[in-house]
Amino acid sequence: METPPDVDELAPPNRTLMGPGPSPVHPRVLRAMSTPLVGHLDPSFLDIMDETQELLRYAFRTENQWTIPVSGTGSASMEAAIGNLVEPGDTMLVPTNGYFGGRMASMAERAGGDVVEVDAPWGEPLDPVDVQDAFDEHQPDVFGFVHAETSTGAKQTNVPELTDVAHSHDALVVADTVTSLGGVELKVDEWGIDVAYSGPQKCLSCPPGASPLTLNDDAMDKVLSREEPARSWYLDLSLLEGYWGEERAYHHTAPITNVYALREALRLVAEEGIEERWARHERVAGALKAGVEAMGLDLNPEDDYWLPSLNAVRVPDGVTDSDVIDFLLDEYDLEIAGGLGDLSGEIFRIGCMGHGAREKNVTFLVSALADALDEQGADVDVNAGPAAVRDAF
Amino acid sequence: METPPDVDELAPPNRTLMGPGPSPVHPRVLRAMSTPLVGHLDPSFLDIMDETQELLRYAFRTENQWTIPVSGTGSASMEAAIGNLVEPGDTMLVPTNGYFGGRMASMAERAGGDVVEVDAPWGEPLDPVDVQDAFDEHQPDVFGFVHAETSTGAKQTNVPELTDVAHSHDALVVADTVTSLGGVELKVDEWGIDVAYSGPQKCLSCPPGASPLTLNDDAMDKVLSREEPARSWYLDLSLLEGYWGEERAYHHTAPITNVYALREALRLVAEEGIEERWARHERVAGALKAGVEAMGLDLNPEDDYWLPSLNAVRVPDGVTDSDVIDFLLDEYDLEIAGGLGDLSGEIFRIGCMGHGAREKNVTFLVSALADALDEQGADVDVNAGPAAVRDAF
Repeated sequence: METPPDVDELAPPNRTLMGPGPSPVHPRVLRAMSTPLVGHLDPSFLDIMDETQELLRYAFRTENQWTIPVSGTGSASMEAAIGNLVEPGDTMLVPTNGYFGGRMASMAERAGGDVVEVDAPWGEPLDPVDVQDAFDEHQPDVFGFVHAETSTGAKQTNVPELTDVAHSHDALVVADTVTSLGGVELKVDEWGIDVAYSGPQKCLSCPPGASPLTLNDDAMDKVLSREEPARSWYLDLSLLEGYWGEERAYHHTAPITNVYALREALRLVAEEGIEERWARHERVAGALKAGVEAMGLDLNPEDDYWLPSLNAVRVPDGVTDSDVIDFLLDEYDLEIAGGLGDLSGEIFRIGCMGHGAREKNVTFLVSALADALDEQGADVDVNAGPAAVRDAF
Repeated sequence: METPPDVDELAPPNRTLMGPGPSPVHPRVLRAMSTPLVGHLDPSFLDIMDETQELLRYAFRTENQWTIPVSGTGSASMEAAIGNLVEPGDTMLVPTNGYFGGRMASMAERAGGDVVEVDAPWGEPLDPVDVQDAFDEHQPDVFGFVHAETSTGAKQTNVPELTDVAHSHDALVVADTVTSLGGVELKVDEWGIDVAYSGPQKCLSCPPGASPLTLNDDAMDKVLSREEPARSWYLDLSLLEGYWGEERAYHHTAPITNVYALREALRLVAEEGIEERWARHERVAGALKAGVEAMGLDLNPEDDYWLPSLNAVRVPDGVTDSDVIDFLLDEYDLEIAGGLGDLSGEIFRIGCMGHGAREKNVTFLVSALADALDEQGADVDVNAGPAAVRDAF
């Protein structure tokens, strides 16, 4: 008989999470997760599912019946969207202006689709003219774009123009709203988005594990009339329809606790009001932006594309990004992140999401960042940043 | 501006979960879930990942390096196993003796494989002679079997004989251990199982959301030498290897809270000792079995195949299963389930799993079931069941 491993009680450090996610979780949501479970087919859980769907529709600004949490983290809802919508032989148009367009491409290819691209530099949104050109050239069946690019901190503007182009070519539109849902203005129905997916651990401030997805009837018609089944059984929306729809048939055991948590996180959204929540993110992140700019730093995206939930701050000359990131973690228990892909080493990614989008966190962040940069010998004004934050509030 | 939905505070009923899962969660595990999060790349989380892997290896009785929680519920770890191991053109041999063999078949087909079957009636294990015949006839590349059939309450015996047949034909063996891991004797390495997947919400008594998977080097060699990528990006083990392996590269945001919970659930396994835990399940479920038999009911599987974690009790003549199930839920806040597929309407499925495998729960269950059956006019001895349970303890 082997000696069992001797592992200590769980005692992770007490971090302030200001990276690209997970964001700080509201105590009410944490508490909801310690609620004893009911079964996934219990009548009371079916009510909880209905309520979660209703709350999700409110957050997405949609009337879509087909609005559910997918049983996995954000990439699961992403693959549920793409893997069901893209059939073998379909062509999907994806953007190249950030990390997640590449992930869309990989998922579309694995679904048996062909991938074509519309280009924009990392840190800039797509230009509707380029999207129009790409449609004219490639006639794609599905068009994906990223509303809030977590890798670059750039927001896609002109969304209704993009969806108009797609619909005039009879294509369906999939939007990555991972870092916008619940934090940045997003109107799924009004903007003509056919499918949107998100993650719970960004502006909803909920632990990852059950991830928002919404599809309108046009999208669901395509899914339900596929010639061959989706390539994932777990993420097959035509089967999930049996569980989340009227039949309530067993498909897989839902992650009950994660649904509890998402429901509570969405209750907080409803209590605050979605427009008020967008405004809070803009106000609080605005103070963060003012603070870092006052200390002499630049944001990477132009102001027109600034994404309040994810602030991409350029690493100043002479500073190594990882030294600053490690210093903040070690000295301040504060998490921020570096860049990915084309922006690796060039930006800090500073989240201002959900329960983390508070004056207290921004005051702490700007002060700590000023100290870290000063410590690393950067030419920054260590007092101007915190002062600008005080002025902003 | 639309009025936000008005959804009440979360207050599910206080169920005693004695169905096929989820099982009752230990308070320490529930409490772990309300721990504030760290980031998925935080150095402290990397340690937590290591510890969780070490504890999982202990529970699986394996030395496999490749032992991880998959970011989803049990069907996600199932599809991670099958979807990575089965390549287009491969043939997978699956059993027909329960619900989950059919799910294996669907997943293998979606992965691009061909499916062949080895038959046994629902409620009986596979016969090694039939498996040998199927191998000789079909020469499959992958062989799947279900160690503990949640749909029938039957245990697959003679596992080393099955794996010997497969290995002598150069095939890899995938075991469904969803309802055995942590509750019923399971020895992955000693029994020659190449890949095993499980769920956390059965004998580990952990909320669903991060699901155990283990692969030995032979299986991982096949996965890493695939000619084309797995059809799911989310479940692609060659990519997950970057995160759970030495590189620690970002793939997707892990369900941090679910990993916290699984770690705590596995600490409870280690504290109790895996052999002691198997013995407890057998002892406590044995009292349950004695109780239902004493009141005049039969278990569906023969005693040789009895599965302590999931007791399939035949519905007595003149009784409608759903009436009993509803009565127990309404009057006793007690969850049990009915049969699936070939056994629909013919059995009750009564779980005795993890934190639910306790004297208290069995005493309650047998007493409540006797009352429910009596209430429905069944010819049962309502006193003999509880008396037999008292005698057993």
